[in-house]
Amino acid sequence: MGAMTAETVLDRLATAVPPARIRTDAATLESYSHDDAEWAPCEPPLAVVLAETVDDVAAVVRIAGESGLRVVARGSGTGLSGGANAVADCIVVSLERMTAVLEINEAERYVVAQAGVLNDVLRATVGERGLWYPPDPASSAISTIGGNAATNAGGICCVKYGVTCDYVLGMTVVLADGSVVRLGRTTAKGVVGYDLTHLMVGSEGTLGIIVELTLRLLPLGGREERAVVGSFPSLETAGVAVAAITAAGILPSALELIDRTCLRAVDDWQHLGLPHEVEAMLLAKVDDPGAAGEAAAGRLAELMAGAGAVGVERATDPAEVDRLFRARRLAYPALERLGPVLTEDVCVPRGAVPEMLTRIQAAADDNDVTIANLAHAGDGNLHPLIIAPEGDDAAKARAKAAFDRIVEDCLALGGTVTGEHGVGLLKLPGAGDELGPRVLAMHRAIKDALDPRGILNPGKAFPA
Amino acid sequence: MGAMTAETVLDRLATAVPPARIRTDAATLESYSHDDAEWAPCEPPLAVVLAETVDDVAAVVRIAGESGLRVVARGSGTGLSGGANAVADCIVVSLERMTAVLEINEAERYVVAQAGVLNDVLRATVGERGLWYPPDPASSAISTIGGNAATNAGGICCVKYGVTCDYVLGMTVVLADGSVVRLGRTTAKGVVGYDLTHLMVGSEGTLGIIVELTLRLLPLGGREERAVVGSFPSLETAGVAVAAITAAGILPSALELIDRTCLRAVDDWQHLGLPHEVEAMLLAKVDDPGAAGEAAAGRLAELMAGAGAVGVERATDPAEVDRLFRARRLAYPALERLGPVLTEDVCVPRGAVPEMLTRIQAAADDNDVTIANLAHAGDGNLHPLIIAPEGDDAAKARAKAAFDRIVEDCLALGGTVTGEHGVGLLKLPGAGDELGPRVLAMHRAIKDALDPRGILNPGKAFPA
Repeated sequence: MGAMTAETVLDRLATAVPPARIRTDAATLESYSHDDAEWAPCEPPLAVVLAETVDDVAAVVRIAGESGLRVVARGSGTGLSGGANAVADCIVVSLERMTAVLEINEAERYVVAQAGVLNDVLRATVGERGLWYPPDPASSAISTIGGNAATNAGGICCVKYGVTCDYVLGMTVVLADGSVVRLGRTTAKGVVGYDLTHLMVGSEGTLGIIVELTLRLLPLGGREERAVVGSFPSLETAGVAVAAITAAGILPSALELIDRTCLRAVDDWQHLGLPHEVEAMLLAKVDDPGAAGEAAAGRLAELMAGAGAVGVERATDPAEVDRLFRARRLAYPALERLGPVLTEDVCVPRGAVPEMLTRIQAAADDNDVTIANLAHAGDGNLHPLIIAPEGDDAAKARAKAAFDRIVEDCLALGGTVTGEHGVGLLKLPGAGDELGPRVLAMHRAIKDALDPRGILNPGKAFPA
Repeated sequence: MGAMTAETVLDRLATAVPPARIRTDAATLESYSHDDAEWAPCEPPLAVVLAETVDDVAAVVRIAGESGLRVVARGSGTGLSGGANAVADCIVVSLERMTAVLEINEAERYVVAQAGVLNDVLRATVGERGLWYPPDPASSAISTIGGNAATNAGGICCVKYGVTCDYVLGMTVVLADGSVVRLGRTTAKGVVGYDLTHLMVGSEGTLGIIVELTLRLLPLGGREERAVVGSFPSLETAGVAVAAITAAGILPSALELIDRTCLRAVDDWQHLGLPHEVEAMLLAKVDDPGAAGEAAAGRLAELMAGAGAVGVERATDPAEVDRLFRARRLAYPALERLGPVLTEDVCVPRGAVPEMLTRIQAAADDNDVTIANLAHAGDGNLHPLIIAPEGDDAAKARAKAAFDRIVEDCLALGGTVTGEHGVGLLKLPGAGDELGPRVLAMHRAIKDALDPRGILNPGKAFPA
């Protein structure tokens, strides 16, 4: 570490942050040293600060900067790329205690909330006022809006409603010198200066620490959910259905794919009576109200049948819609029961989904690993889930080889190495290949401009 | 200028760009020295390059950089803030000849087009393939998509469908060192690295020159336009209707306001039989299909009547919808017939629209100028149009005083000094007040990082 001893730094921290918010016990240091990414490297932090105010965060950044330390900010640590993993000589600042919803403005349709508010809590809170915050990452029950913004999280309804950045109007950010600024606006439109708000979104805490967000909302009403779920005899036929749905100009509010491995894992666990002979299921929703929604749902069912579905179920009753989507929700925890899951996040052009699924199966076969597939099929965003038995180093190496192969294949098909999870640590090599040297140089120039001492989450988001 | 004589620079340019594309005659220099902003300062450029290829643009930037010159890029020069105005010792590079639509991908719903394609041409071209590019600035017939992206242009349908940045997936950019990079993606989602695409959008050519855009599209079908137009006895009652529509959770696809001065100017010119006793009109559209759209239109009509409209007209026939919106389309040219128009672009919270309209009238009265009001009322984006008789310097000074007063009032109401036109030159002081010193320092740091010699459109977008 830098010029000061750890003890001196902790003493200084304790003069600026209430000591009860500073943790240095081994168990806390360990549990805050990493997020949910399997096998991403991490180091124990020097201290964890459970920030409760913007001033706490600013003090940590200021003192770290003066002390030659780094700062890694995190929400609830649900990331899947290692973006919140602690690095050498760092202080981890957790925003999970900053949970105030500060303002709900119904007339302007926005909410101002601290970074540590859980996504589902935000959605429920604004829902009580007739407003809707669409972005719905699978982690919505446990992930924070600050983490969602720092990674530009996606979700299931993105296919129609966009991702986190589409809803961020403004924010309060702690900069690398410990100063606090407001970026963006609360008005519906605004183009003053550079779009620093969107530069911060997805920057994984490397350019500033988002402590408060102003989020655009939609009216809650006016939508009616209709689910259409098709069972397919092969991944290929499911892929054909996805292409047909896109070509027909239908905008579903969800279009998810689950393969047999996922379905079996869910059924073995929860005994939902899912069909074992089915190779893939497509779970679609439309939310247009009335006759338009009914027509779109009918068309979805026809297109699925036309593509070769062996069965198509429809539902409009909310409980029944929920039941049809249960397998999607349970798939990830069901697979985690089978062993550590290395989660991929490639995104390819929609038309390349069938080819990418074929290549993923080849990567599994060639490396002798099990890969299950969950996909936001309507976005071309695939989550191959590579499963390796606990404690088997050879299997882990084979899983890593399959992971690298999938990244290569995705780039070859015109895709991006991360659709919604972020670069973190796991996607650094792929990000380098995708961005190329000149664009990486732009990243370094901007990082140096806004964080000249390199104290904010160094080594993340793009390769050095 | 820098180390070389003008002649030497022009000689070097002529070795890299076909000489027919280089203009130095006085008439061309004059007509390319400014955009459509009244009274923004400009200087004659040293030369105008009518670029036809990416290489032309890159060569201009490279040679300018080596020669100590600056480069001002422009589309068709329809900007209203002076962002495309030439500066001392500069070469103007026009992209208006780069008009190729390079790819329309129906499966992925995107279009790749050169920067000089006109907005309406792009919309018509993708429309033939069943696709829709929503952003519709009032200048859509004459403005380029490159200029739209460089200024993050808005338009009428933004209230429901968002602005240009919401549709920019990626781009090709010429950087300040003359290198050419691809930013962004063609996939539906993607979060690799910093969001440099959105950093470029709205940066007014100060960080790079956008030469090609990849734009996200929506399906063209599935919408049915219904117009509801209300005539109001006062601006206040129209403002009350806007607030009631927002509060009711209706998402109109257009919600425009026109005041009496505009209506009279249009009617005096075109004799449309517009009601002279009316103080304001609200022009709304909804585009939900079928019963949902019919219900929303009915509710709009009720809310307008409830707020005090003296008449409400409705239309579903496309020609009739078009007729009802004609006054909106003709308002700006009608006013320009009355004298030079200094166009404001403040955006306030929707709820502050009535108060802002009152303050605008006070600014007009106190400064003895005529101000007409056009507004994207549903966005809170107001365009007070300050009219000054040609050649009257005292009137011009009074108009400028009213302009400054409106900027101050908008900030006092929590607004932004530019909703969609950009900072350019006219809004530099207001932008400084709005952003504050620390955020301005971030702007300078990023500008220095990406354009260390300061050759790209210096002095625009944010105050030095």
